Amino acid sequence: MLLSALLTSVGINLGLCLLYCTLYSILSKQPSNAKVYASRSVAAKEAPAETNGFDFERLLPTAGWVRRAWQPSEDQLLSVTSFDAVVFIRIFIFSLKVFGFGGIIGVFVLLPINFQGTQLEEDYSDSSYMSLDSFSISNVNDGSKWLWVHFCAAYIFSAAVCYLLYDEYSYISSRRMAHFYSSKPQPNQFTVLVRGIPVLSGSSGSETVDRFFTEYYSSTYLSHSVIRRTSKLQRLTSAADKVYRTLARLKSEKDPQKRFKRDGLFGSKVDGLDHYGKKLDDLEDTVRLEQSSLAGKEVSAAFVSFKSRLAAAIAVNIQQGTNPTEWVTEGAPEPQDVHWPFFSSSFIKRWVSKLVVVVAYAAVIILFLIPVAIVQGLTNLEQLETWFPFLTSILNLTVVSEVITGYLPSLILQLFLSLVPPIMILLSSMEGYISFSQIQKGACTKMLWFTIWNIFFANVLSGTALSELDILLEPKEIPGLLADGVPAQASFFIAYVVTSGWTSTVSSELFRLKPLIFSMIKRLFSGNDGDEFEAPSIPYHKEIPKILLFGVLGITYFLLAPLILPFLLVYCCMGYLIFRNQLLNVYAPKYETGGKLWPIVHNSTIFSLVLMHIIAIGIFGIKTLPLAASLMIPLPILTLLFNEYCRKRFLPIFKSYPVECLVKKDIEDQSDPSMDAFYDKLRTAYEDPVLLPIQRRRSRDGYNSPLLPR
Amino acid sequence: MLLSALLTSVGINLGLCLLYCTLYSILSKQPSNAKVYASRSVAAKEAPAETNGFDFERLLPTAGWVRRAWQPSEDQLLSVTSFDAVVFIRIFIFSLKVFGFGGIIGVFVLLPINFQGTQLEEDYSDSSYMSLDSFSISNVNDGSKWLWVHFCAAYIFSAAVCYLLYDEYSYISSRRMAHFYSSKPQPNQFTVLVRGIPVLSGSSGSETVDRFFTEYYSSTYLSHSVIRRTSKLQRLTSAADKVYRTLARLKSEKDPQKRFKRDGLFGSKVDGLDHYGKKLDDLEDTVRLEQSSLAGKEVSAAFVSFKSRLAAAIAVNIQQGTNPTEWVTEGAPEPQDVHWPFFSSSFIKRWVSKLVVVVAYAAVIILFLIPVAIVQGLTNLEQLETWFPFLTSILNLTVVSEVITGYLPSLILQLFLSLVPPIMILLSSMEGYISFSQIQKGACTKMLWFTIWNIFFANVLSGTALSELDILLEPKEIPGLLADGVPAQASFFIAYVVTSGWTSTVSSELFRLKPLIFSMIKRLFSGNDGDEFEAPSIPYHKEIPKILLFGVLGITYFLLAPLILPFLLVYCCMGYLIFRNQLLNVYAPKYETGGKLWPIVHNSTIFSLVLMHIIAIGIFGIKTLPLAASLMIPLPILTLLFNEYCRKRFLPIFKSYPVECLVKKDIEDQSDPSMDAFYDKLRTAYEDPVLLPIQRRRSRDGYNSPLLPR
Repeated sequence: MLLSALLTSVGINLGLCLLYCTLYSILSKQPSNAKVYASRSVAAKEAPAETNGFDFERLLPTAGWVRRAWQPSEDQLLSVTSFDAVVFIRIFIFSLKVFGFGGIIGVFVLLPINFQGTQLEEDYSDSSYMSLDSFSISNVNDGSKWLWVHFCAAYIFSAAVCYLLYDEYSYISSRRMAHFYSSKPQPNQFTVLVRGIPVLSGSSGSETVDRFFTEYYSSTYLSHSVIRRTSKLQRLTSAADKVYRTLARLKSEKDPQKRFKRDGLFGSKVDGLDHYGKKLDDLEDTVRLEQSSLAGKEVSAAFVSFKSRLAAAIAVNIQQGTNPTEWVTEGAPEPQDVHWPFFSSSFIKRWVSKLVVVVAYAAVIILFLIPVAIVQGLTNLEQLETWFPFLTSILNLTVVSEVITGYLPSLILQLFLSLVPPIMILLSSMEGYISFSQIQKGACTKMLWFTIWNIFFANVLSGTALSELDILLEPKEIPGLLADGVPAQASFFIAYVVTSGWTSTVSSELFRLKPLIFSMIKRLFSGNDGDEFEAPSIPYHKEIPKILLFGVLGITYFLLAPLILPFLLVYCCMGYLIFRNQLLNVYAPKYETGGKLWPIVHNSTIFSLVLMHIIAIGIFGIKTLPLAASLMIPLPILTLLFNEYCRKRFLPIFKSYPVECLVKKDIEDQSDPSMDAFYDKLRTAYEDPVLLPIQRRRSRDGYNSPLLPR
Repeated sequence: MLLSALLTSVGINLGLCLLYCTLYSILSKQPSNAKVYASRSVAAKEAPAETNGFDFERLLPTAGWVRRAWQPSEDQLLSVTSFDAVVFIRIFIFSLKVFGFGGIIGVFVLLPINFQGTQLEEDYSDSSYMSLDSFSISNVNDGSKWLWVHFCAAYIFSAAVCYLLYDEYSYISSRRMAHFYSSKPQPNQFTVLVRGIPVLSGSSGSETVDRFFTEYYSSTYLSHSVIRRTSKLQRLTSAADKVYRTLARLKSEKDPQKRFKRDGLFGSKVDGLDHYGKKLDDLEDTVRLEQSSLAGKEVSAAFVSFKSRLAAAIAVNIQQGTNPTEWVTEGAPEPQDVHWPFFSSSFIKRWVSKLVVVVAYAAVIILFLIPVAIVQGLTNLEQLETWFPFLTSILNLTVVSEVITGYLPSLILQLFLSLVPPIMILLSSMEGYISFSQIQKGACTKMLWFTIWNIFFANVLSGTALSELDILLEPKEIPGLLADGVPAQASFFIAYVVTSGWTSTVSSELFRLKPLIFSMIKRLFSGNDGDEFEAPSIPYHKEIPKILLFGVLGITYFLLAPLILPFLLVYCCMGYLIFRNQLLNVYAPKYETGGKLWPIVHNSTIFSLVLMHIIAIGIFGIKTLPLAASLMIPLPILTLLFNEYCRKRFLPIFKSYPVECLVKKDIEDQSDPSMDAFYDKLRTAYEDPVLLPIQRRRSRDGYNSPLLPR
């Protein structure tokens, strides 16, 4: 790619960013868009009264939102949002530190050295036709002594990143502990999920659970609720709820005309109140019937609650029954987080479905190589011309070729990538996770490796050796192969950072283009739809892999093409501000995992470092500096040892809480008079809401607002 | 190797075996050899009175010992020895089942097919010059349809072995549970070892431990004993004990003349009683001085005992402190099993020493290739002749060449191998294990992989590709390489089974050649040495890898050269009888791990199966049957999945006991009146014996026999 093409891309994207920011600044001030840009306050019913009066100030773009996003301290952010959100923002802070340090070395030390080289023998007379490759390590002459600077830079940078990693892991784990200490008693701290209950014929699952835990946890066992298959009932109750809400809206309708509706397309008009009232009564009868018939449909799994956190931890951490595939326990999720479209209580079924998911995941990764190959074709214009000769005349236009090489590829990748997260969520839920948070975490890891493989490796290798993919079976070849392929794709990835990083973040995150259009269409066609509104939650499984991919790019290209780092720094600053803004205004936390996502970030960074080292080994080999290549080998080993140390030092903190914390909190609770009320709540916390009597559930969920007496 | 050479080797070894058995039968009846052949009854002081009268029957070889070894049932064996010994014997039973099933298919189905082939085009006219290779798969013609029989045999055999593995794992784990249920309260069930105690300045380790466990285990904490550095004190007390025993012997001496000894070589005779009495007093004073000064030399580690098994399990299974590298817990070994030449309480030191051990282990494995190469040279006589031309005339003698190819190589390997176990014990103890049982288990695993690598792979690969060792870096080449090398070494391994399996087992195990010679020399020079005698314990780390290597050979050669199986069956029968005999008469159990060695056997068998599959893939490739090679690929995958299932189904049972068992036993104890006495014993069980007052320790260890009033 030429420098001019990069500049074109930067120009286009800067323009788009500014445009989106300006539009955001204006649109977010319009009360009609509050649901899009201030979902949290709308959902919490704190939104300002919707005044339709015209206000000139609303049409002026201002940067006030930047200040408001910047100002709150981390503690304020924590109190308003969740600990997960704080950890999410820490990813940007961590990336800023890494890219800041790397950027200084890269731009002021490595870049001049690369540019001095004459390996590529370019014509520098016209700087606009200068290839970006002259800023990369490929331009340094073979065997040049300057490469030792790169060698030192690799060691210094790795040491700095490891220090930052340690620092951040330590900071986040201490915050996690502090957050646990300051937390109120929560049902999930006292509860475990038990699967594989060996129910004997002639006794019910409920009795079996009761007998087991009364015997072995005599002093701490509180209660349990056996799980039942309720998918049919769930459909029925959600249908009933929908009718109930429509009825409620009709009742509050001031204009009696609007209460009438046509029965069918050409039928006579009927009173909506009567019609829906009858329908609701029918549905509720069916629900009651189904509820009573469900008593027998037990699954051999149950939520078991204890009187202390320590007892729950014992149940989770120590094998319960003599057969390890029975009485399998795990920590319960928060009651509102329970979600299991593919729940299975049998050990062997879950194991088989995990294997199936692994195979399906591999299939998705392999099938995705097809769109990637198309994108790759677009950056190699010559190849495209040989494939489609009739395009030659169009492709020879400078503007077209620059747009195609600079912008189109990332756009197409973007499009295909947006299809993947739902697939990953599906795969993760098939694995048998019991909560949405776990499904999202699983999908996050899957997305991460998918992204790294399909964006990074597929692009790097398809340029050099897609047909020779089986060379990967020969591990000795890998460093050379990567050293060949990775620098060649530097310009593609710089363009990728600019289009996918800058514009997509601003447009899809800050401006919320899709929700905005969706909300406009909705308002046009259906009008206001009452108090059904719920603030969206942040899709960690989409966002974190995106950010981490930029981390991989930044760390691997630090040595090869440091020009990428300033662009990444800009991205991180933008991301930091925008996501703070969105977390404060748009996304409501749905669950709290206590920062369990951080280990994913840590592992990904370690992976990037080792990848960078392997490429460096290959590069020094290619550049005929075998001594440097050999001296590079200890670096990945040291990095992996550092990672191993961190796994031992910090990872257990993210898995479960230690006895020290649990007992301290338990002792605190003993002197708390409100614990009895909490235990009462705990007894019913994990009952399936669809099994509750209809009135009780509605009053619990807040449907039965004083507006609607029945 | 020719058939005649094999027959020579079988003849020699059968003769040796018979000779050893006859000698054993005679020698074991001599009362003077009781310490060698009936160590257990001697140590337990049940040995029959030593009558020096001549008895003709004693000189007749009889087979009574075989009947006595065969008769006891498994339960009787368990009551007399330990559960570990029962598990050890189960290895032979399991091997017998596997080789029995494999032998029937191999000898009656595969062997005739192999022999029918004409690939090697041999001259069958003189059967004594027939090469063993004509019985191996190498003789089957390329592309022959008969190879599909081998294909089916691989599937059937793998399924049968997996079934046997499952059956055995299930049997042993149920026995393990039953053994736990029937066990009396034991100190190690109630105790944990805590390392990395964060001692604050100004308080002692003992206080810190007390404060922590009193706070967090208020209802179940019993006592603790902080560990001190006592290596100097141990030297002093063992010196004092030695003097004490000499003194005791002198006192009991009837002949007063013998009590006098020379002071130095030419000094005057002094009364031994006075001399040693003064020496003992001096030593005991020093010991008391050292004991009192040790109070301060605390290590930040302690044994902590609880009132219930469940509390100890909680302390082991759940992280204790907020920092996972502090308050690190593990189950305590039995008090008599505690052994830590390289104990370290610091997390980081232990981690580093583990890394060092890994490196040292790799170095040992690589260095051992040198003797293996020498052995390899002996089997390839032609190569030896080219190396040492002056040997040609000797090597051309038939007898010499047959002895050299048939017997010498295994003998040399045997010699070098006997040096390895002590090295592995050293390496394992450096890893920081806290008990001899753990050290031995670690050494067992190390020995196993060492043996498989250095006996199996080094022999297989040095014949074909020792110089091309780096081909191993290309995983695609491995099946072909093994398929090339493994069948070629069939005759070497058959000879190895006969020499190393048959003769070494009989000579070193049953006949106990080395201890016999040692005991004879001792009796000649020093006479009877009182009651210091202790029965030896079985060196699992030496024996199990040996047996498992034969398992690897049997399973991998089942398909290639089934002729090995009958020899292995004979080995297993001999091993079963001989080891039962030795466990009943010679070896006393030193510790009880509850069968924790079985998972090693299971893993090794799974490894053998997968190795067999990989070789089969290579063989079918070489024999131009690509369809069979491809259809073979699911088999290792299925085997590994089966292994994964077993890991989940059985392995947790071998790691720790479930809550169900622990609580049941704890409840049982509550109604046991002897528990108070047990708790009193428990409080002092883990005190370092050298720190006890001298008299108390001696009376505890039984030194203070009524014979010796002081």
